[in-house]
Amino acid sequence: MSDETVTSRAADATAGRPALQALLTDAQSGVLLFGITPPRQSAAPDEVRQIAAVTIARLAPLDVDGLVLYDIDDESDRNLDERPFPYLPTMDPAVFQADYLAGWNRPVVVYRCVGKYLEADLRSWLSKADSRKVLSVFVGASSSQKAVHTGLPRAHALRQEIRPDLLVGGVAITERYIRSGDEHLRIVAKQEKGCAFFVSQVIYDVDATKSLVSDYFYACLEQKVAPRPILFTLSVCGSLKTLAFLKWLGVGIPRWLENTLRYAPDPLAESYHHCVVAARELSTFCRRLGMPFGFNVESVSIRKVEIEASVALAAHVHAVIDRPP
Amino acid sequence: MSDETVTSRAADATAGRPALQALLTDAQSGVLLFGITPPRQSAAPDEVRQIAAVTIARLAPLDVDGLVLYDIDDESDRNLDERPFPYLPTMDPAVFQADYLAGWNRPVVVYRCVGKYLEADLRSWLSKADSRKVLSVFVGASSSQKAVHTGLPRAHALRQEIRPDLLVGGVAITERYIRSGDEHLRIVAKQEKGCAFFVSQVIYDVDATKSLVSDYFYACLEQKVAPRPILFTLSVCGSLKTLAFLKWLGVGIPRWLENTLRYAPDPLAESYHHCVVAARELSTFCRRLGMPFGFNVESVSIRKVEIEASVALAAHVHAVIDRPP
Repeated sequence: MSDETVTSRAADATAGRPALQALLTDAQSGVLLFGITPPRQSAAPDEVRQIAAVTIARLAPLDVDGLVLYDIDDESDRNLDERPFPYLPTMDPAVFQADYLAGWNRPVVVYRCVGKYLEADLRSWLSKADSRKVLSVFVGASSSQKAVHTGLPRAHALRQEIRPDLLVGGVAITERYIRSGDEHLRIVAKQEKGCAFFVSQVIYDVDATKSLVSDYFYACLEQKVAPRPILFTLSVCGSLKTLAFLKWLGVGIPRWLENTLRYAPDPLAESYHHCVVAARELSTFCRRLGMPFGFNVESVSIRKVEIEASVALAAHVHAVIDRPP
Repeated sequence: MSDETVTSRAADATAGRPALQALLTDAQSGVLLFGITPPRQSAAPDEVRQIAAVTIARLAPLDVDGLVLYDIDDESDRNLDERPFPYLPTMDPAVFQADYLAGWNRPVVVYRCVGKYLEADLRSWLSKADSRKVLSVFVGASSSQKAVHTGLPRAHALRQEIRPDLLVGGVAITERYIRSGDEHLRIVAKQEKGCAFFVSQVIYDVDATKSLVSDYFYACLEQKVAPRPILFTLSVCGSLKTLAFLKWLGVGIPRWLENTLRYAPDPLAESYHHCVVAARELSTFCRRLGMPFGFNVESVSIRKVEIEASVALAAHVHAVIDRPP
């Protein structure tokens, strides 16, 4: 795909649908993002350029509102079990965005595992980021034992001080809600620190996610604050190895769904079906409640067949949520 | 309604659909039961006759396969919290069936909280029960601390010895599955003791119930035994007091659904809607899995509006499960 095509699609978009930042600020429902992991750190610049071009070409037919770039942290402190896929250090998503994604003409949500960065580095990135092109999601430490350079509250304070115009979001974790029961209150607290939106971890437990959303919605009602949009992350699962990886990542999978995937002749098709059902169920639930929502589609696996299924899923979710153009 | 009407409907049924006993023995899906609590012990015979007549008239338009009569036990040992509705001792369901339900021409599933009965009494009832008209569900003690006259294994052994022709079922409890994780194995064990079918506790947690069913189905596959039908019990919830009672009974209600019912302008309509959705979801899930299933509709509340909604729900569930005539 040529750069011209990208430009023309982006120009069309500019004429019609508001930019991601405006949609989130206005708490509009129906935002659709696509999430990817930056190339591995050891990749040569030519290879990174090639990966960027392939990614942009792959996503061009999708009318998504933005791209999500994850910031991968070595989470071995959180989970001592063997990682089903080896941990390979990946590029800083901020570098990948700034140096290689000029061809992508929509906003990019750059994740920041803030604990990895010295305050000076975070400060420097914040002051340079172009808020028309970049949003961020701040992620805290993967465990309370982990030593951090910059804590999450400090990162939020820095953003408020240096770049109040840069839209920042937080993470919403269903499994933490199941464990501790107060994730909805953590979300309200993050919103008070400046989070304008939230992105969930990969969701397989739709029922518990509905409970988290419901408790969050009614906590906002009680505290007389407007709920911020939550973007639900969906990822297909094409093999038992991906299933093991999802579990390693801490994704809660209801037993019936795990059984279904284990016994399915084609787990990829089965998980794709369940992601579409999840999108439909969460949309219906949020619309009925009056809760702003959107979706983020990614592939936790780097297998080509799973990445391609994720792209198809994003198009399918686009249709399911019946997003205005 | 006259007795003639009942007879003519029963005769129609005899010509078409097999009797409840045959449907369960053959592990057919689509059985539909209606559950009621016998009149209170203090009711005079005339009043009991009147209650029986009203009940039969109310259920006549429903083409259910049978009636369930609960055996109410004082479960205060299980739950020390105050019971939202007071405990009123009720008639022995076996007596209500034998002495007052001659006008009901379909089978009756008589529950037996076996721990309440001396072995001699259970033996006597078993030897007299007419297996063309009566089935039973044996229920164990409500807590392990409770002193019992007859234990569940002994009751099953008695039935095997005295009346192997009398069809007996067991209970399936989603909440025990959530707590202990082995309810599906308990069900397999009960089936080995002679249970031909299972009736669930009232279900509000559809997702966990799907997990229980799935684990049971695959445990049967592994142990090379055919799964027995599970009948899912649904009950509407017309007020916050009924909600409190459901929770007192140990019914697990997902947080989102509890919030929905609490904030609903009309909790009865809301819970009715969710019961229909539950029937649809459980039917689809079981059919896809190849698991035999059916439904049992009851009202845990004795308020007239809730009982009438239960009758409407049974008719609705009849349509949802698309039961052959």
